[in-house]
Amino acid sequence: MAIRYELIKECKQSGARLGKIHTPHGVIETPIFMPVGTQATVKAMTPEELKDIEAQIILSNTYHLYLRPGHELIKKAGGLHKFMNWDKPILTDSGGFQVFSLGDLRKITEEGVEFRSHLDGSKHFISPEKAVEIQTALGSDIMMAFDECPPYPADYDYVKKSLERTTRWAKRCKEAHTNTEKQGLFGIIQGGMFEDLRRQSAEELLELDFPGYAVGGLSVGEPKPIMYEVLEYTAPLMPKDKPRYLMGVGSPDALIEGVIRGIDMFDCVLPTRIGRNGTAMTSQGKVVIKNASNTESFEPLDPECGCYTCKTYTKAYLRHLFKANEILGLRLMTLHNLHFLIKMMEEVRQAIREDRLLDYRKSFFEKYGYDL
Amino acid sequence: MAIRYELIKECKQSGARLGKIHTPHGVIETPIFMPVGTQATVKAMTPEELKDIEAQIILSNTYHLYLRPGHELIKKAGGLHKFMNWDKPILTDSGGFQVFSLGDLRKITEEGVEFRSHLDGSKHFISPEKAVEIQTALGSDIMMAFDECPPYPADYDYVKKSLERTTRWAKRCKEAHTNTEKQGLFGIIQGGMFEDLRRQSAEELLELDFPGYAVGGLSVGEPKPIMYEVLEYTAPLMPKDKPRYLMGVGSPDALIEGVIRGIDMFDCVLPTRIGRNGTAMTSQGKVVIKNASNTESFEPLDPECGCYTCKTYTKAYLRHLFKANEILGLRLMTLHNLHFLIKMMEEVRQAIREDRLLDYRKSFFEKYGYDL
Repeated sequence: MAIRYELIKECKQSGARLGKIHTPHGVIETPIFMPVGTQATVKAMTPEELKDIEAQIILSNTYHLYLRPGHELIKKAGGLHKFMNWDKPILTDSGGFQVFSLGDLRKITEEGVEFRSHLDGSKHFISPEKAVEIQTALGSDIMMAFDECPPYPADYDYVKKSLERTTRWAKRCKEAHTNTEKQGLFGIIQGGMFEDLRRQSAEELLELDFPGYAVGGLSVGEPKPIMYEVLEYTAPLMPKDKPRYLMGVGSPDALIEGVIRGIDMFDCVLPTRIGRNGTAMTSQGKVVIKNASNTESFEPLDPECGCYTCKTYTKAYLRHLFKANEILGLRLMTLHNLHFLIKMMEEVRQAIREDRLLDYRKSFFEKYGYDL
Repeated sequence: MAIRYELIKECKQSGARLGKIHTPHGVIETPIFMPVGTQATVKAMTPEELKDIEAQIILSNTYHLYLRPGHELIKKAGGLHKFMNWDKPILTDSGGFQVFSLGDLRKITEEGVEFRSHLDGSKHFISPEKAVEIQTALGSDIMMAFDECPPYPADYDYVKKSLERTTRWAKRCKEAHTNTEKQGLFGIIQGGMFEDLRRQSAEELLELDFPGYAVGGLSVGEPKPIMYEVLEYTAPLMPKDKPRYLMGVGSPDALIEGVIRGIDMFDCVLPTRIGRNGTAMTSQGKVVIKNASNTESFEPLDPECGCYTCKTYTKAYLRHLFKANEILGLRLMTLHNLHFLIKMMEEVRQAIREDRLLDYRKSFFEKYGYDL
């Protein structure tokens, strides 16, 4: 079996889980934030820099890699790890979320999804079997079942039909998945913002006995309190002895709230994307580097941060790089934001270890502020 | 005295010079190629990466830094070295070349040049005294006198008047330059493509006894054989005991030809600019990475190269990064091209040491090809 979860302990104060995920490319400590490398590169970073900031696993996107450079090419290159020079674990999504996001460009049937490429308009078809085929070619440690992710808001009947299709697709994915010794396949629980539908989805998928489960269909536009409510009733439906992954979530508050509700894994483009737009996550909250107030600030971005950016450069220099559209600015801000979330999750793990995660949350948000 | 040149030997085969330049921030081995960091950053690179590829000195642009972020800000930051985290030597140009390149946006008088910013159209005036003031604030090890760089072609009378003004401006720069212990000021020999005018310019400037001299007004559109001809009669006019700098030249062939004609220092945006456009300089000549022929090439960019890019990634991966507009592609190609020129100059120095630079030129161009 490719993927094995080891529960180390639960936080006595919060119930949050401390664990390890054993994968073919090494062990991941959870709870974990996974940087996103959509196109076989975490934007602006080298793999060595990711290791320096102690990234343990990255996510890459099946939809993008299927279109460009193509999964067959990556297979010929020896797989995604070798292609991009990353020898630690990789998780690939199923392509479902991206394909559904195409809106008018896609058509869903029971067989799968027909869509047009956002790059050149060419026609493609991804079925559950195809999603597994692509991810098998990529060689990710963790692959995701092809699911349907309903928008928010969506009505009860639509969500119910959708989750039932997701179950049928999950079965087809499981049947198509043969490389089980080297790649684990996770199921994705859907059900929108409806408790009984989440329960139905979880029950149906648990029968398929995947080595891990994700909560899909969240962070799709719903207010955060609704997301937390869904997590509160969904996480307890998930097996205790398997990893639990909340897809597409990366704000510091949502990570901490997710962990408290029993989640082990998170991914999001947020830290890299806002970094490239000049916004830093810091121990004092967000810093918009282009603000005039930083013009003559010869202080680090975050005085409590030990990353290369903060140890080496001033806000005045970073502001200059962004005003001058210099690539180094994108690099330094991306590095800082990823380091910030990875470091925060390390602190979260330590707080669980010491049964004080609720205290940690309080002190963190007193300084950082809280985004709703 | 801030700058001192030490002639180690001349190549018995070619006459090329092997030397050292002693500066307040360390010793530079010559002949040398200087990467350009226009806006207080060598595009896409960190200072540590520049050191890894053994860059010994970088160039930064007075015009750009004067406009953004402003030399006063950099002075407050503790100077350019500290601002950008580069503790090795820095050479700054005088801003003259950039200002003259503005065309209709500038007006030249005896006092100096009035121009409009390419950023926001605001009006500015740079005189020789102002150019020295800005470079003093930046704190570069080597500053350049404010000169007028005639276009190519330009007629005899224009070039003669222009070089004479450049001499008058050089005198004013020298008088304005007071920080002589920590910063050296180089004169720039002009005179276009006219031997007697080059001689006149050199004689006038040598009287001012600068610690180093540049050949300006080349690589401005003239054919390379003309540039080499000008170098052949200009370099011998320059003092043997001072560094000789050919401004704005960075193609491998022109570097080697320049060294053979007695030049010690070169700078150019070429390796970084073509790198960001996806063209690599390699031991086998130029490689345009986006070419379809690289689609399934799982070989390094340059099989003879030991840089991080070539040791780590395939052409197929680099091509993917460029096709997908990924920043990492710009980084890896920039790194490779700078490494290539720096390594080449190291080989050039070794060839001089061993009195075989003409042999080196021959074998280099048999593989690389020769751009005219």
